[in-house]
Amino acid sequence: MTNGLLVFQSDFGRGDGAVSAMHGVANSVKPGIPIFEITHQIPQYNIWEASYRLLQTVGYWPSGTVFVSIVDPGVGSDRRGVVVKTVNGQLIITPDNGTLTHLKRFVGITDVRIIDETKNRLPKSGESHTFHGRDIFAFTGARLAAGIIGFDDIGDALDPAMLIELPLKNSTIHDEVITGIVDIIDRPFGNLWTNISRLQFNDIADSYGTAYAVSITTDGRTIYHNILKFGRSFADSHIGEPLLYINSLDNVGIAINQGSFADAYRVGTGTNWEVVIRKAPRVVYE
Amino acid sequence: MTNGLLVFQSDFGRGDGAVSAMHGVANSVKPGIPIFEITHQIPQYNIWEASYRLLQTVGYWPSGTVFVSIVDPGVGSDRRGVVVKTVNGQLIITPDNGTLTHLKRFVGITDVRIIDETKNRLPKSGESHTFHGRDIFAFTGARLAAGIIGFDDIGDALDPAMLIELPLKNSTIHDEVITGIVDIIDRPFGNLWTNISRLQFNDIADSYGTAYAVSITTDGRTIYHNILKFGRSFADSHIGEPLLYINSLDNVGIAINQGSFADAYRVGTGTNWEVVIRKAPRVVYE
Amino acid sequence: MTNGLLVFQSDFGRGDGAVSAMHGVANSVKPGIPIFEITHQIPQYNIWEASYRLLQTVGYWPSGTVFVSIVDPGVGSDRRGVVVKTVNGQLIITPDNGTLTHLKRFVGITDVRIIDETKNRLPKSGESHTFHGRDIFAFTGARLAAGIIGFDDIGDALDPAMLIELPLKNSTIHDEVITGIVDIIDRPFGNLWTNISRLQFNDIADSYGTAYAVSITTDGRTIYHNILKFGRSFADSHIGEPLLYINSLDNVGIAINQGSFADAYRVGTGTNWEVVIRKAPRVVYE
Repeated sequence: MTNGLLVFQSDFGRGDGAVSAMHGVANSVKPGIPIFEITHQIPQYNIWEASYRLLQTVGYWPSGTVFVSIVDPGVGSDRRGVVVKTVNGQLIITPDNGTLTHLKRFVGITDVRIIDETKNRLPKSGESHTFHGRDIFAFTGARLAAGIIGFDDIGDALDPAMLIELPLKNSTIHDEVITGIVDIIDRPFGNLWTNISRLQFNDIADSYGTAYAVSITTDGRTIYHNILKFGRSFADSHIGEPLLYINSLDNVGIAINQGSFADAYRVGTGTNWEVVIRKAPRVVYE
Repeated sequence: MTNGLLVFQSDFGRGDGAVSAMHGVANSVKPGIPIFEITHQIPQYNIWEASYRLLQTVGYWPSGTVFVSIVDPGVGSDRRGVVVKTVNGQLIITPDNGTLTHLKRFVGITDVRIIDETKNRLPKSGESHTFHGRDIFAFTGARLAAGIIGFDDIGDALDPAMLIELPLKNSTIHDEVITGIVDIIDRPFGNLWTNISRLQFNDIADSYGTAYAVSITTDGRTIYHNILKFGRSFADSHIGEPLLYINSLDNVGIAINQGSFADAYRVGTGTNWEVVIRKAPRVVYE
Repeated sequence: MTNGLLVFQSDFGRGDGAVSAMHGVANSVKPGIPIFEITHQIPQYNIWEASYRLLQTVGYWPSGTVFVSIVDPGVGSDRRGVVVKTVNGQLIITPDNGTLTHLKRFVGITDVRIIDETKNRLPKSGESHTFHGRDIFAFTGARLAAGIIGFDDIGDALDPAMLIELPLKNSTIHDEVITGIVDIIDRPFGNLWTNISRLQFNDIADSYGTAYAVSITTDGRTIYHNILKFGRSFADSHIGEPLLYINSLDNVGIAINQGSFADAYRVGTGTNWEVVIRKAPRVVYE
């Protein structure tokens, strides 16, 4: 069922030995196991971003890939560890703390197992109770990827509906006005990625080159209000010109060509950063 | 004797091509050789941290893994290059400048060979005398890992006692008061990792939940003095609460749950950062 | 013709999921394909640095290695995508925007193919026109490396002379005075790497230990003028002492032993940062 590949994500950074200790555990399970990384630069304890990065990447990996995601502020509490299967056959092993929010909503999770830590724990992992990434998740992920254990050996089944979810806000459309939020900043470029899908945008979208009025507000304060062209890509704009575009996740993005929109206007992310898009009024000079 | 795996560590960062040049040399020795990294973010010239990161990781890798560690302020001097074998069969290749301090003291080194640079140097490596990481250490490490040369082909044997060591300070216990130092900061989280082992702490430790008086001093100045609970993990504390815990190296750690202790109190590392732990007096209100 | 190895470079950073999406596409082409990185920390849109990092690394990789380099400010424009072959048999796939400048000049490019995007594009890659790194370059690079397509399947041939080049400035020598520029900063160490080759420096160079007068000017302003010794390596200098040396690319470097020359004097890079080296006058005290 697994294809042998193991992909890690965490908020550990790469400055110390934590990631390498996990890689070592995986290589102790199976020497030379092919290991890849999503990122280890998730902001500390930021479960939302961990969830979003899974959405951004998992679908590009083949069925049977095993992902280990560790953003785990509740390590040592009674929060569950789980392994889930997506509708496309990828496996994700993670603390059940909201990390699976986007995959559950936008991709689909078919099966869940609760990790039985009495069976799935690195032997001799000592008295430390603070590094389940190494002692439980990397160890179990590697054993799954290597085919030493199967999905059913993880532990009891859980109804996917019971997985913990962070609150998500859908974009809406009324009278040809779309209201969404800034989901995330596309670092290091500084583009805004909204939660407005291309399909919804199509309801008001015209051909490339059409202009739209875009407002961004936070705490009731408007921090941006301008007319932007809808570009096929950045190259349709002058350098330094702002634009709307469809990003690599098929959502609406807002950018300054070769500049940083997020830095220019100090834009943040989350449900308190609202984006409103409407067709620009056609101005006729007479 | 080797298992084919090659693991790198350096202070080169990943911003330029230096690490990739080393990877290229290794792949020229054996295309597709499995390469992993501890970190390349050791602070420049910080041999102490290089030594500590080896202690943190090497033991989690299987016997026969070859580690290449390059923090080398003395490149081009007459400092030796060495390959050593740990009691657990891992091999480390490094300049002999103190990088092996922790492994020698806390793990054990059984054999040492001095690299004969006349035999073990990348052919056509030119007139550059500043990148032994590429021209000698990566080249020799890859040839060892690939089984092209054996341990005995490296060069003359050296008595492990002759390896250069940085000064280490042991923690001490007198009258149920433990005195240690801050060995390193657990970045990016900002937890303090002390040199006080769990075994020594056990001499005064009670059950989880017990309170201890913790002082941190530097240059004779007390920068922290407070009562902390001993937690099984962070989850036993409120968010923002400080705690004592056993870290993933089986030593005493000091943290703020989901905060950065090091940043909060501007704590540094080394023998000038003293940590004193004693049982908190039991306060009885009458 | 390819050896199976795939090496990436970009200006994407490793903080989000972009690189992992590319890795996923490559693993979907061939699960477990050996992937390495030059760096993903090229400063955004900095084609010059992308070109320089290829020069710094490609030659250390075996013939038949496939490199994918994506610094692509013109994504979505009519800029070409190309695959080129070096005289040493390495393959590089990149937007044709100047990224091949140094390899073309200093190594040699024998063959070029223009990527036919109608044939070489990730199936179902949707309406996004902003991530050719994932949808075209990683996909095509992986198929080349895996031997699924050959060099001739990429698209039409192009005369290597037609590749886009950034302006390069050669160092010159007149009356035993060498004039060059600062090509790049050797981060994180802060050493200056000039465009003055060892061969040219040899025209005025004496034995190690000889002193040279070094001036650095920008915008007509002299920001450094001092007498430096030519050292075989940093170890020939006192800690904190500046020196001239031959760097790992066989060019003249300027450094402070264990300090950062670039930070000390705020030195930048490019044709506006001129370096002049002449033999120091021999001072005789009578």
